[in-house]
Amino acid sequence: MARTLVIGNKNYSSWSMRPWIALKATGIAFDEVMIPLYTGEADKRRILAFTDSGKVPVLVDGDVTIWDSLAIIEYAAERFPKAQLWPDDVAARAHARSVSAEMHSGFAALRSECGMNIHRLIGPKPLSDAAKADIARIQQIWGDCRQRYGRFGPYLFGGFSAADAMFAPVVQRFRTYAVELDPISQGYVAVMQALPAVREWTEAALAETLVIPRFETD
Amino acid sequence: MARTLVIGNKNYSSWSMRPWIALKATGIAFDEVMIPLYTGEADKRRILAFTDSGKVPVLVDGDVTIWDSLAIIEYAAERFPKAQLWPDDVAARAHARSVSAEMHSGFAALRSECGMNIHRLIGPKPLSDAAKADIARIQQIWGDCRQRYGRFGPYLFGGFSAADAMFAPVVQRFRTYAVELDPISQGYVAVMQALPAVREWTEAALAETLVIPRFETD
Ligand SMILES: N[C@@H](CCC(=O)N[C@@H](CS)C(=O)NCC(=O)O)C(=O)O
Ligand SMILES: N[C@@H](CCC(=O)N[C@@H](CS)C(=O)NCC(=O)O)C(=O)O
Repeated sequence: MARTLVIGNKNYSSWSMRPWIALKATGIAFDEVMIPLYTGEADKRRILAFTDSGKVPVLVDGDVTIWDSLAIIEYAAERFPKAQLWPDDVAARAHARSVSAEMHSGFAALRSECGMNIHRLIGPKPLSDAAKADIARIQQIWGDCRQRYGRFGPYLFGGFSAADAMFAPVVQRFRTYAVELDPISQGYVAVMQALPAVREWTEAALAETLVIPRFETD
Repeated sequence: MARTLVIGNKNYSSWSMRPWIALKATGIAFDEVMIPLYTGEADKRRILAFTDSGKVPVLVDGDVTIWDSLAIIEYAAERFPKAQLWPDDVAARAHARSVSAEMHSGFAALRSECGMNIHRLIGPKPLSDAAKADIARIQQIWGDCRQRYGRFGPYLFGGFSAADAMFAPVVQRFRTYAVELDPISQGYVAVMQALPAVREWTEAALAETLVIPRFETD
């Protein structure tokens, strides 16, 4: 049965990166369709043919269509239990879902001031207090997870989980904008950058030539 | 075992309303702790005692702590399968998760221009194009769900589901700002307003006397 993940440009589409990393890192097979973002009507229509939301990512798994990064991850966790996308332990799973959902609906300041842009190392830039608070909170989340679950492995909850996938674009942003991090967060960023799925995404992003001008203003 | 849902003011806290409605409407028992929002340091510290995120809602279920509206709902769906928070059918469940997650991370314009404020019938106000597009998209979601699943019952997916809980605050906003709706959406709003859990929340909100000045400027 065909399983297709519809994504945007790998260089820019942070939402697409999350489920892509979740599926890839856990060995769930899928085909990929890349639709360039913000190029005009024709590409927008291609997205709308998959989902009325008009947004990527979208997963089409046989006759099931599911859109939105977090919904795709919950679907995959349920459909492929062996992938262990969420931690086994109830309290750890509750924690992993909390930080993933916090990422999903929060951190608006960081997201808008530090857009994902893998091909360009922009370096430090002045940030609003709200964006600084976002960065501090993310480091607090990472530190707390690593402190509780670090003995089980190098990821947020020991072994790789959906929570790592949810934070994968933030890792890229911290690199692009040379954000100063505490030692635990530095270590976690290094672990994530070494993850084969993240390397594969990053290399493909770097190979893209398509530029979205409005994301290149900083 | 004690189960406590920590929420904000019922009049304003749209995020708190979602899991509260999900639990209440499906008969999952819980105690409630209300912490007034944006009153200063002391109340903020009370929230921080439950979660480092500093935000409500938070669910404390025995030794499991889980915060964020959607994460609480996923936790409850898993812990109380009889509550049937998500539809049984795989495709319906994927759809319900998609629209719930779309609500969770989207509709920023509507959210900021039409804050939830149950005690005050503000009436129509000029809205940005982005907020109008949000309203159109929500009606499209509701219409699409009702068309597919309307024969199974009056809610988005027939019987009550977590998706209804996720959209419950929007129903309040549409009423507060007298938003013009298509007939299917009007019908759905009426169904939601008649839901005992929604009535209970609304009555408690109306009984609150605490006012947050910055949410009373329109
Ligand atoms: N809440 C959604 C957000 C999806 C989203 O905003 N996707 C952007 C790209 S990263 C998009 O498709 N934009 C295209 C458009 O708006 O035309 C998710 O988590 O998947
Ligand atoms: N993504 C969170 C959002 C929670 C949120 O923003 N809560 C607001 C109230 S509705 C809050 O606690 N604000 C208090 C503060 O920031 O001090 C969720 O879905 O639960």
